[in-house]
Amino acid sequence: MFKTKIAGIGKAVGSSIKTSQELAVEMGVKDGWIEKATGVMSRHYIDQEKGETALTLGTQAALSAIRDANLDVSDIDCIIGASGTHLQAIPCDAALFQRELGLEQSGISCFDVDTTCYSFPLAVFIASNLVSSNLYKNILIISSDTPSPTLKKAEREVRVLFGDGAAACIVTKTPEGESSRVHHFKLNTYSEGADYTSVKGGGVLKHPNDPSTTLEDNIFHMEGKKVFKTAVRYLEGFFKELEEASKILISDYKFIVPHQTSKNGMEILRKYGFEKERIVNHLSDHGNCIAASIPMAFYDYIQSGEIKRGDMILLFGTSAGLSLGSLSITY
Amino acid sequence: MFKTKIAGIGKAVGSSIKTSQELAVEMGVKDGWIEKATGVMSRHYIDQEKGETALTLGTQAALSAIRDANLDVSDIDCIIGASGTHLQAIPCDAALFQRELGLEQSGISCFDVDTTCYSFPLAVFIASNLVSSNLYKNILIISSDTPSPTLKKAEREVRVLFGDGAAACIVTKTPEGESSRVHHFKLNTYSEGADYTSVKGGGVLKHPNDPSTTLEDNIFHMEGKKVFKTAVRYLEGFFKELEEASKILISDYKFIVPHQTSKNGMEILRKYGFEKERIVNHLSDHGNCIAASIPMAFYDYIQSGEIKRGDMILLFGTSAGLSLGSLSITY
Repeated sequence: MFKTKIAGIGKAVGSSIKTSQELAVEMGVKDGWIEKATGVMSRHYIDQEKGETALTLGTQAALSAIRDANLDVSDIDCIIGASGTHLQAIPCDAALFQRELGLEQSGISCFDVDTTCYSFPLAVFIASNLVSSNLYKNILIISSDTPSPTLKKAEREVRVLFGDGAAACIVTKTPEGESSRVHHFKLNTYSEGADYTSVKGGGVLKHPNDPSTTLEDNIFHMEGKKVFKTAVRYLEGFFKELEEASKILISDYKFIVPHQTSKNGMEILRKYGFEKERIVNHLSDHGNCIAASIPMAFYDYIQSGEIKRGDMILLFGTSAGLSLGSLSITY
Repeated sequence: MFKTKIAGIGKAVGSSIKTSQELAVEMGVKDGWIEKATGVMSRHYIDQEKGETALTLGTQAALSAIRDANLDVSDIDCIIGASGTHLQAIPCDAALFQRELGLEQSGISCFDVDTTCYSFPLAVFIASNLVSSNLYKNILIISSDTPSPTLKKAEREVRVLFGDGAAACIVTKTPEGESSRVHHFKLNTYSEGADYTSVKGGGVLKHPNDPSTTLEDNIFHMEGKKVFKTAVRYLEGFFKELEEASKILISDYKFIVPHQTSKNGMEILRKYGFEKERIVNHLSDHGNCIAASIPMAFYDYIQSGEIKRGDMILLFGTSAGLSLGSLSITY
């Protein structure tokens, strides 16, 4: 589809580590329950006293991705924000990252794309479209999500699952002679599940200053069982259609990099032909980092050498919406 | 660049009309001052008691755009949310519009793009990319912004300027034999101006539930003079680069459809070669409707017959970021 390449990738996490053991004590739940229910042993949280935010984490990941691509900050000609939650209502995240990167007078294009937890692969796909159209050469994509400050008041199943992290990448055209490609993109949204994962506040429908907006409206709400049930209802058809439309078999992928939803959400993938060994998983020491999860897990497997150039990879995720998405690439 | 077409367009406004005369009484400012300072005689506000919201307005505009394109709701295969403010933090606006349109089990792709007031032309450009890549056939774009509920507490220059409205369009490939095209896209972001127009709340940096977040953080802040000064500093270079890169002269456009920023923000365009007669302007009875402004004004000039098929049009805008954007099309 596109002769484009993820030319560099970077990652950053909150500097504070919270173990599930510590969390169990705080929450007054049985020792070992969190690990068993979620598969999460520990997660990173931002240290707000050190000034860590979604902005600092995203910037750190961006600088690391730029270095990894052997580029200079000044080589970037477009920034796409691709987080699941935004830094502030106005302007877009990309503009705020541009300023942090010292590019405030550069004039390079800044915008965000958003399909919550699947925003990163969507951004890679749109960026691949844009570099193929010769509008940009080196597009920087940043996903940064830091739910931790709101977790203390969150529902139990939310509080135990989430962590803070960021990842970034550079999308370019693939140089002659290299095999990197974007083969296929698919995004199926079923808004019958729009209320299953939501933050009803933070926008104009339940504005923060409206007296009828509650504190609960402003935090993440999840009906995990309904998400799981709805996703499962569509998953088999999704993967079947994916194989047919992309002409790539499930067995052709060296790895699936799934959104790190939860233990059950990732184990279910085995039902559709992905053996455990092919399912990228860093849930145990990161939890679910919203839109940053897919690129963070992808990064870790590249760093460990398990994912190499030329490997066929499926970036797959479920996200609020409710959406199922897949991006088939040769890394 | 792309053989694509805005195949249908629709508009919706809040049902309540607020005149500048009424507003002057409410605000205790001199009669006639608002009209003189802003060029706005009246603006539409949503009637919350009638259940009007950004969601209902956007849906109404979408249905009108679908009819205008001679399509059925079931023909839409992708929805792009392109508002300047969001309906709620999670999920994306497009998913919520999908549900309102009765497409909740359709599986069609939903995502948002965001570069605040210039989100609509950005979405048209991305949609043109996507239909040209044969991924989608009929993409629905919706911009809907309803600032009115927060305006009473806003700064004076903000309160007098804004109105509520929505617009939507369908992007398709251009049928053989027709002249509609997307010729060129340009988006220059200068984040040195990121604080000049902002809502610092509504995201994770100043979360609504954080006790240190103030009511002021959650509403739109504008330093109009700084925006104007910064924009003017870059405008001449912008239009010069645009002519060179697009090979289309300023004099070739039948109309420029500018973001309806303010009287001064639109009059300054005459300095760059756009005579008053070629500057699309519906500020006087709409005010500034954020991201919905450009498509709403575009719609009005199509309805009045001033803009016709085959006309060369420039969708131009400044937006929070601070960004300058242009999309050159043959309508």
